[in-house]
Amino acid sequence: MFKRSLVKPDGRLLHLYGRTSPPPECDLGGPSGGYGGSHMRWHPLRAEWVVYATHRQTRTFLPPPEYNPLLPSSDPNQPTEVPGSAWDVAVFDNLYPSLSADAGASPPQIVDTVPGVGACEVVVFSRDPGQSLGTLPLAQIELILDVWADRTADLGRRAELAYVFPFENRGVEVGVTLHHPHGQIYAYPFVPPLPARVLAQEERYHALHGRALALELLEAELAADERVLYRGPRAVALVPVCARYAYEVWVTPRVPCPSLLALDTEIRADLARALKTTLLKYDGLWGRPFPYVMACYQAPSDGELHPETQLRIEFYPPYRMPGRLKYLAGTELGAGVFTAETLPELKAAELRAVEVELE
Amino acid sequence: MFKRSLVKPDGRLLHLYGRTSPPPECDLGGPSGGYGGSHMRWHPLRAEWVVYATHRQTRTFLPPPEYNPLLPSSDPNQPTEVPGSAWDVAVFDNLYPSLSADAGASPPQIVDTVPGVGACEVVVFSRDPGQSLGTLPLAQIELILDVWADRTADLGRRAELAYVFPFENRGVEVGVTLHHPHGQIYAYPFVPPLPARVLAQEERYHALHGRALALELLEAELAADERVLYRGPRAVALVPVCARYAYEVWVTPRVPCPSLLALDTEIRADLARALKTTLLKYDGLWGRPFPYVMACYQAPSDGELHPETQLRIEFYPPYRMPGRLKYLAGTELGAGVFTAETLPELKAAELRAVEVELE
Repeated sequence: MFKRSLVKPDGRLLHLYGRTSPPPECDLGGPSGGYGGSHMRWHPLRAEWVVYATHRQTRTFLPPPEYNPLLPSSDPNQPTEVPGSAWDVAVFDNLYPSLSADAGASPPQIVDTVPGVGACEVVVFSRDPGQSLGTLPLAQIELILDVWADRTADLGRRAELAYVFPFENRGVEVGVTLHHPHGQIYAYPFVPPLPARVLAQEERYHALHGRALALELLEAELAADERVLYRGPRAVALVPVCARYAYEVWVTPRVPCPSLLALDTEIRADLARALKTTLLKYDGLWGRPFPYVMACYQAPSDGELHPETQLRIEFYPPYRMPGRLKYLAGTELGAGVFTAETLPELKAAELRAVEVELE
Repeated sequence: MFKRSLVKPDGRLLHLYGRTSPPPECDLGGPSGGYGGSHMRWHPLRAEWVVYATHRQTRTFLPPPEYNPLLPSSDPNQPTEVPGSAWDVAVFDNLYPSLSADAGASPPQIVDTVPGVGACEVVVFSRDPGQSLGTLPLAQIELILDVWADRTADLGRRAELAYVFPFENRGVEVGVTLHHPHGQIYAYPFVPPLPARVLAQEERYHALHGRALALELLEAELAADERVLYRGPRAVALVPVCARYAYEVWVTPRVPCPSLLALDTEIRADLARALKTTLLKYDGLWGRPFPYVMACYQAPSDGELHPETQLRIEFYPPYRMPGRLKYLAGTELGAGVFTAETLPELKAAELRAVEVELE
């Protein structure tokens, strides 16, 4: 992997990655933000931080409807976020970040408030707006995993950041209208509540049994073999026995691997195959792009090894049937209890039946 | 409050409530379910139960599109869920419950599974399909609070149930297509994860300071007076300083009141005023019915007093601007970190400016 890091005219960072050769020098342009800082307030009852980034509501940059900010620049009069020069994957600071390095002051309130320190990056998966993560060649998906690892290392070195979280929101059903293939990375100044809850279970289990809870569960899934979608030498994709979303899928290494930083060549290659299998099955299921939230969980960025946890990419698709969304409402959003109308075994059978070609 | 409890032909319970006189005897009919039981599986990483109620996906009862099951019956050939006789509020067991008294067996899995024991009730707020919770007379809203308290007492007496949770999902934006004014009550065999998290904070605070955390926060809100929408002698409505949703509102007693069971005449009357104020402001804001999830949090049903907690009705509206939904995606659903594009003070100012008439 080759990398060139640059600073945009408005101060935002841009990292260009090349698979086989270093990205050349290039001119930079593109939109510049009306960034006004953000702050966090403590929710004392839920014991969590809430981020207030008001510049996101009143965006000053209003592009024409056909403008694709993630397309490599070709017109110097209308530069995009990424240069037209050669690169394979690009990462840049979000124009309207929820969290940033220069978060500014936090106005005093009746609860604790702190500046919204962190990072919000956009990851451009491909130069080609017609592709998606799943249609990309395996080598490109491997590069994306490498880029995630590089960002985890870079951001994790910042002492004020505690957790690096790559994710993708895909589809208008989850609020995304820009279809150029891309994901995001948030780096938080704390371990967020949901990964923290999982880590607490994993720590308890590891202290008692000396093994990683997620790997134990994975072995039971492989033995049951009812819900496995991909079984490779180093990685697996499956509908978990305790799926909350109808078509929930987990993609994870089968060997101990707490974070993106622990990926070696073989795990990465197999994880790319597991990912691509999942994504092609999703799109093949109903013959249309399948919307989802993809969440990549890993160890916190505290420099520890974290043998208790395991890298895991979870997919949360909003559909429970063709054309029928699963709405999160009273019991899910209010109580935190998910009710599923379908069995994980049946949804796994549907996805297993979709044939895919990886290359 | 007057009450008549009945058993429908298919075994489901129906409770009719009258404000000023007892509901008379009546014939019962209506749809009967293809109920097939439900079970729960333990999610070992998140440490929570997931409910699988597959009969909800394949509903056997397919009513004609204009059929309103919550309208008092008038045609003996097409009975609804509720009789045509006199009543003011009706409660009945959901035809397709996620949790029920006769949940049946739980198939063995690689994680713990248990029957989906609990209760799922529908609360019909009014006989009139053209009303909504906020347009009802104060006396009717008081009756609904009384009915919630009655259901909390009834369900809480069942030894296997731990938490009674009244809620309302309102609007197609949160998945509700039946507009007859109604809410739901779920009774869980455990304290659900989100109330459990809040209770843990409240217990810690109470042990340290001997006071209820929510009441301390409420006093600070009243003193700041920036976000208060209604300030009565016994109850308050406000946009909380740590609102996660743009138009989030909390309605709560200002005097110690851990649960619906602790409501007295004065608190109930003022809580009804705070509720009605909130709902009329919501609908008045953009001159259209305002969608939301309403969650009513209270003490667990363990017979203890729970002075550490406080009854609180929270509203989670999905809109952040007219026509602009707030999508829950990567950071919210994946990490559990809410990002708000608006400040609670500004949203409170908008709602404060909406004038309402309570009677």
